[in-house]
Amino acid sequence: MGTGCTSEAEALAAVRAFCAAWSRLDMLQIEALLAENVVYRNGPLPVIRSKAAVMDYIRGAGPFEEMKWELLNISVSENIVLTERVDHLVRNGKSATLPIMGAFEIADGQIVEWRDYFDLASYRAQFAQEKGL
Amino acid sequence: MGTGCTSEAEALAAVRAFCAAWSRLDMLQIEALLAENVVYRNGPLPVIRSKAAVMDYIRGAGPFEEMKWELLNISVSENIVLTERVDHLVRNGKSATLPIMGAFEIADGQIVEWRDYFDLASYRAQFAQEKGL
Repeated sequence: MGTGCTSEAEALAAVRAFCAAWSRLDMLQIEALLAENVVYRNGPLPVIRSKAAVMDYIRGAGPFEEMKWELLNISVSENIVLTERVDHLVRNGKSATLPIMGAFEIADGQIVEWRDYFDLASYRAQFAQEKGL
Repeated sequence: MGTGCTSEAEALAAVRAFCAAWSRLDMLQIEALLAENVVYRNGPLPVIRSKAAVMDYIRGAGPFEEMKWELLNISVSENIVLTERVDHLVRNGKSATLPIMGAFEIADGQIVEWRDYFDLASYRAQFAQEKGL
């Protein structure tokens, strides 16, 4: 049950399940895959610590009408899973497409650290354009 | 000699060599590891195609006094290598630290596609601050 017990197959499975849960907007499953003490580093935005704080942030960022995490590539080394994705989302009737990579550290089948890398201005510009700005 | 011939070990070795070459600012080795028809997707910046165009871009982006690609995590699946890095650099006496992930597609021991993901504004702000802006 220690943090050294996660196999590469288990780590991959956890991250694949997390991507699938996002694509269903399955908040219960997203929450289940986060460790209590998870640390979420969301690009240049402030670091968020704890499952409760991450779930508050996710709910506050939405609600999303649609979400799809398109998984381009995924690989694992020990308990670290690296992903290359395109996240597609619709929020308040506005759609955005986000090229993104993410690193996930897994312990006991849950995500203990989640680090996403993307260009924040490119993301925000898609919402601004649709408002006519 | 086809593009399907690269083993995971060869793909990892090519990317490790590329990271090491950057950390020595070894332009000849950087060039040697790029395929003639390489495609370089540098975050939100314009796509660059061909080895000659990428080398022109790299030389134009510098000259760098110092560079270190700190490799936090690396993993491979087939011929795709995913990296999580912190790139440290000094240019014109100004230093910057860039949290970044990159995906590399390898064929015949060379990089045929290189895609980096990072927050461009965070990178540029480090140079702006040092100019007193």
